[in-house]
Amino acid sequence: MANISKKVSWSGRGDDRGERTPLLNGAEDGKYNRHDIVRSRLKEIPHNAKLLSLKYESLDYDNSENQLFLEEERRMSHMGFRCLETRRWVICGLIGFLTGLIACLIDIAVEKLAGYKYSAVKQNIEKFTEFGGLSISLILWAVLNSAFVMVGAIAVAFFEPIAAGSGIPQIKCYLNGVKIPRVVRLKTLAIKVFGVICSVAGGLAVGKEGPMIHSGAVVAAGVSQGRSTSLKKDFKIFEYFRRDTEKRDFVSAGAAAGVSAAFGAPVGGVLFSLEEGASFWNQMLTWRIFFASMISTFTLNFFLSIYHGKPGELSSPGLINFGRFDSDSVQYNLYEIPLFIIMGALGGVLGALFNVINYWLTIFRIRYIHRPCLQVMEAMLVAAVTATISFAMIYFSNDCQPLGQDNTEEYSLQLFCADGEYNSMATAFFNTPERSVRSLFHNPPGSYNPLTLGVFTLAYFVLAVWTYGLTVSAGVFIPSLLIGAAWGRLFGILLSTITSSQSIWADPGKYALIGAAAQLGGIVRMTLSLTVILVEATGSVTYGFPIMLVLMTAKIVGDYFIEGLYDVHIKLQSVPFLHWEAPPTSHWLTAREVMSSPVTCFNRVEKVGRIVDVLSNTSTNHNGFPVVAHTTENDEPGKICGLILRSQLIVLLKHKVFVERASSRLSHRKLQLKDFRDAYPRFPPIQSIHVSQDERECMMDLTEFMNPTPYTVPQETSLPRVFKLFRALGLRHLVVVDNENRVVGLVTRKDLARYHLGKDGLEELHLAQT
Amino acid sequence: MANISKKVSWSGRGDDRGERTPLLNGAEDGKYNRHDIVRSRLKEIPHNAKLLSLKYESLDYDNSENQLFLEEERRMSHMGFRCLETRRWVICGLIGFLTGLIACLIDIAVEKLAGYKYSAVKQNIEKFTEFGGLSISLILWAVLNSAFVMVGAIAVAFFEPIAAGSGIPQIKCYLNGVKIPRVVRLKTLAIKVFGVICSVAGGLAVGKEGPMIHSGAVVAAGVSQGRSTSLKKDFKIFEYFRRDTEKRDFVSAGAAAGVSAAFGAPVGGVLFSLEEGASFWNQMLTWRIFFASMISTFTLNFFLSIYHGKPGELSSPGLINFGRFDSDSVQYNLYEIPLFIIMGALGGVLGALFNVINYWLTIFRIRYIHRPCLQVMEAMLVAAVTATISFAMIYFSNDCQPLGQDNTEEYSLQLFCADGEYNSMATAFFNTPERSVRSLFHNPPGSYNPLTLGVFTLAYFVLAVWTYGLTVSAGVFIPSLLIGAAWGRLFGILLSTITSSQSIWADPGKYALIGAAAQLGGIVRMTLSLTVILVEATGSVTYGFPIMLVLMTAKIVGDYFIEGLYDVHIKLQSVPFLHWEAPPTSHWLTAREVMSSPVTCFNRVEKVGRIVDVLSNTSTNHNGFPVVAHTTENDEPGKICGLILRSQLIVLLKHKVFVERASSRLSHRKLQLKDFRDAYPRFPPIQSIHVSQDERECMMDLTEFMNPTPYTVPQETSLPRVFKLFRALGLRHLVVVDNENRVVGLVTRKDLARYHLGKDGLEELHLAQT
Repeated sequence: MANISKKVSWSGRGDDRGERTPLLNGAEDGKYNRHDIVRSRLKEIPHNAKLLSLKYESLDYDNSENQLFLEEERRMSHMGFRCLETRRWVICGLIGFLTGLIACLIDIAVEKLAGYKYSAVKQNIEKFTEFGGLSISLILWAVLNSAFVMVGAIAVAFFEPIAAGSGIPQIKCYLNGVKIPRVVRLKTLAIKVFGVICSVAGGLAVGKEGPMIHSGAVVAAGVSQGRSTSLKKDFKIFEYFRRDTEKRDFVSAGAAAGVSAAFGAPVGGVLFSLEEGASFWNQMLTWRIFFASMISTFTLNFFLSIYHGKPGELSSPGLINFGRFDSDSVQYNLYEIPLFIIMGALGGVLGALFNVINYWLTIFRIRYIHRPCLQVMEAMLVAAVTATISFAMIYFSNDCQPLGQDNTEEYSLQLFCADGEYNSMATAFFNTPERSVRSLFHNPPGSYNPLTLGVFTLAYFVLAVWTYGLTVSAGVFIPSLLIGAAWGRLFGILLSTITSSQSIWADPGKYALIGAAAQLGGIVRMTLSLTVILVEATGSVTYGFPIMLVLMTAKIVGDYFIEGLYDVHIKLQSVPFLHWEAPPTSHWLTAREVMSSPVTCFNRVEKVGRIVDVLSNTSTNHNGFPVVAHTTENDEPGKICGLILRSQLIVLLKHKVFVERASSRLSHRKLQLKDFRDAYPRFPPIQSIHVSQDERECMMDLTEFMNPTPYTVPQETSLPRVFKLFRALGLRHLVVVDNENRVVGLVTRKDLARYHLGKDGLEELHLAQT
Repeated sequence: MANISKKVSWSGRGDDRGERTPLLNGAEDGKYNRHDIVRSRLKEIPHNAKLLSLKYESLDYDNSENQLFLEEERRMSHMGFRCLETRRWVICGLIGFLTGLIACLIDIAVEKLAGYKYSAVKQNIEKFTEFGGLSISLILWAVLNSAFVMVGAIAVAFFEPIAAGSGIPQIKCYLNGVKIPRVVRLKTLAIKVFGVICSVAGGLAVGKEGPMIHSGAVVAAGVSQGRSTSLKKDFKIFEYFRRDTEKRDFVSAGAAAGVSAAFGAPVGGVLFSLEEGASFWNQMLTWRIFFASMISTFTLNFFLSIYHGKPGELSSPGLINFGRFDSDSVQYNLYEIPLFIIMGALGGVLGALFNVINYWLTIFRIRYIHRPCLQVMEAMLVAAVTATISFAMIYFSNDCQPLGQDNTEEYSLQLFCADGEYNSMATAFFNTPERSVRSLFHNPPGSYNPLTLGVFTLAYFVLAVWTYGLTVSAGVFIPSLLIGAAWGRLFGILLSTITSSQSIWADPGKYALIGAAAQLGGIVRMTLSLTVILVEATGSVTYGFPIMLVLMTAKIVGDYFIEGLYDVHIKLQSVPFLHWEAPPTSHWLTAREVMSSPVTCFNRVEKVGRIVDVLSNTSTNHNGFPVVAHTTENDEPGKICGLILRSQLIVLLKHKVFVERASSRLSHRKLQLKDFRDAYPRFPPIQSIHVSQDERECMMDLTEFMNPTPYTVPQETSLPRVFKLFRALGLRHLVVVDNENRVVGLVTRKDLARYHLGKDGLEELHLAQT
């Protein structure tokens, strides 16, 4: 079981290379007990949703304010800080620009490839419609689709598994403070972009919007650090920003820029970042994030306008464009509000159904489809089935519609319709999903008959559920919108047939929009940010109130059954994700019960041998060590005087900063913050550092390098209070002390993420090494 | 000097009644030193912008988790928490509803009153235009204006001075965590609403939007507490929410609802609240705030639709309606962007000029116009001058325009124009400012001639500067928008004259909008929230990018000269306002330098006499007292074991919770959290509690009531680190301890607010009792 889940986890391959990712500093005895429990229960637990993985590291949003840091900050002048601030703005501008460019690249590539594919299939279909032998067209279509998807799936499955899916759950985790290995590398970006082009061009029920958010985050992480591990290139710029605090801020900006480019929704992007990531709202940071978002949508808009041959006409702010809603048709009336609420509830139910089915499917995949070649085959199968179902739908549908004057459908299929007519099922299936959504919103009343819409909803729902979680990079936003738009339009048509058709609800496009919002809200359960994204995508604020109502209803109804899709997937990966607040019923727990203890501490001046031994101990893999005044032998805990990180110790060992060498080091330069930054973020493992037997007897003085003022809490502090401090400041280690200031325990992320509110009150998740 | 500033301060009258508002717990010796410095410098300091007042209390966003609190929380079931959550939603709904109703009331009252006034003056003017004797019309107009303004100014100056102005600076302070006396009382609301109706109807250069934000906040504070001090009524509902933490959250929602009702901008409202108030972003809280905002704009919209006789047609989401921008005319082109940036810079300069003049004017007012009757007279003078200038402008203007087909101008003046024409200066002056803004945005090209606009800009600028800060309740948003719209339109006209007039910039309305944004941004310097408010008010997201660019430029340019208008006024009141971060160059300061010490501490079991003496000491007026294990006599500080607040001690004294009475109290009920809540937020002063000589010898056990786990920091902690902890958690007292956990100092708001970044680096403000 553990083995299996490792294979398909986001970061599964990290372990294969022997890169252990140590997280916690806790009790050895205590932990063995926990592991025993876990092991003994393994057979009873059918999947790992009730486990909490220990393999994820935490990000440190709190600066280690040691002497080196303070000296550097104090040396810096007022002008120096202004310079830094300017550099932050430049970086945000760059992030926005590059993210916009990537969005542009994806858009153009998808359009070209899909264009070639649909033209080829269309010609083929037209050729065979008269003579019969349409099965050849079907095979052509299915083969083309599978080929595209195969290429994409191979890239993802064999080269960078973390590029699979939309990437939103991973970015959520990153912004929450969990380090997901390899999630913000350049290689991941390349595979992601390539993969999403393939899967959209391959006709899967996917969107290219979700991956944009991940792409933006990778761009941000790369640009802000001024170097790339994948390219092994260090540009020697922006070195000041090489720490978790700064990097996470930039990644927020990147995610926002991604949302902004995807939906043309800069404000929505900012809100997305804040909703997912910000524990501490800072005005300047928000404003910078907004700047990145604006630049991103502007860049996309500008380059697309050149591509479309109308330079300077800025009319495509995002990858998905809901089209302009006519200001008269968007009016809604008071008596429609109950209808909207009903649609919201429906969206909640359907969304929950989607999530439940996908949940079981994902567990099935975790158990049985964990080898890359199997994953590629599954993806190809889905591609072929998608083509087949689409073809069958179009073939058996007899819903012919007259071609409009302006001929808005780019790939309209005549098939068995009369001349001057086109098959309306084909507008939904024989098109990129973005175009289908737009058709459902804007085609005039009567463009679709109800049966077409019903069958389409059902078929697309099944395909979308099956598709999400495949080993291809792909988003779930557009399929959700499409399903919702279809049943929403159906709802609108039914309404206008049971009432006089000249009333205000004669326009089914409005109901398509509301349905799309309801379905998307029911699946992803985002709140404020999604409202704003949808409002910005429609380009009109008139719909704000109904969209909010619908999303709220969908969330309330959906939450009754199951969590949002992203949270389901985060749970399935057993990520120690911190929610907004501690469970309200957790006031009876205190830091004493929550913390890990006893804690491995170091003395201010510690023997090198002991440090090496502790760091090499693979059974504990602690990452943060309280530094105490005197560890007496009789196991009495010492008074806290600082906190030092594994990464810092490793740099110190590497540079052999030993007390005995201090005199000889006078000629050498002093260790600087730069040395720590250069090693960030991939500090070498302890095994790679050679320490001789002589050196083991040396002493190391940690005073200068430890954080002398770590945050501490007394043992009696209640869990919600500990949680609030930990979450608000984005901590990684929180030291628990007794009233003599002696270290008695350490609280880390997994200690807090363990408690969550189940159906019957407070539940505790089990910890597992995988 | 001190005396004068007291007279005109927001909360000046609190002191007259002997209600001292103690804030800090600091060193007596140290403080006397500081005061000496302040006193000695008094003659050199021309105004109080460089002082920090000690009279403002701080709000406590951190729950005091004492035993009573924990017991109550632990008793509560999961269902209980759900109930609470539901109640929070109900309250937010109520807040939105009531705020919307108030906005509706203001709108209708202003429209009616202004309607009567303009009709009367118009008839009068028409009568006298032919026969001569227009000076009688002028007198009529001036007298009407002055009468309205007099009534409003009397209400404000004599009954509730804190209702003056827009109320936004006060709400900013409240959300920042400073308790401004009487700012959220029902009486304030009544005077505010009445005052704003009078001042807008009185034709001052003011808007009714700013006061809505204050009104929303008062509604929120009232509804969430389930009682009113002004009405002396306790509805016995929502008792759980009677503490600073909960109340401040609701006030955020109220402010957001106010913005939402004022501008029809629910998302902008949420962002305003977050920008000003949130130190900790919580998803559920944000969502609730958004709900309140939505309900508020919806309520306003709904009732206004009934008032306008078109029930259910929801087309007026806010008090100010920018009108619908035609989707073709709102297009902008790439080469216009540099123009927008230039306009932004211009807005920044003009905004800074506005703020500088208003700053000096306010200092003049603080010195010389501090008696209520003088204030009323000044307001009347401004009203008369406004009418006179307007009249003169209209009279001397010869800018006649043909009346349109639809006759959109409600009070069009023909004056000396030919039949079928109207005076275009009159559209700008003879109208409520909201209508004038809309005319400038939407009237077709050629409606105004450049000279009219130029003169209007100048005149209105002077009037608006003079008006802001008068003792009337009035906002600065609309005047700013109007000034900006006027010069923006002028800019657009000039552009189209120097180029071919058929180009894309032929539409001056677009430039009016950009100019309005630039001017408003230059004055108030809000960032993200203002962008969103303006975008929502225009109803179209197309302008998002230019508006953001313009606001950003205006802010950068304006900040070079002076702060935003609200910040200027906050500084003039010497409020200890905490910014987002500590000044970047403050790393060399540590908690040791920043804290107040020595600290008055109590023992766990303390003599009643000593408590009464400490609380009665008016020279210190501490509010929070560390509780220590043993205060030895030799002045060695004791080990911290808790923190107790003045308010808690007062409740304990009132209920005579003495150790000696514990046996006799067995029959009595135990003191509960409810007793503390009932006294919230106006705990009786210590003088009102009678303690007999016998009782002075009793002992009080504080263990059960103190917060046993206050946040502490070591002495070596750097100022930015202390600041971050304090700000992120919204603390009121932060205990500084040495490495033995002994209390050595206490950090409060004023210790942190004291340091700010001046032109030449870090500056320290002086503390003053007023």
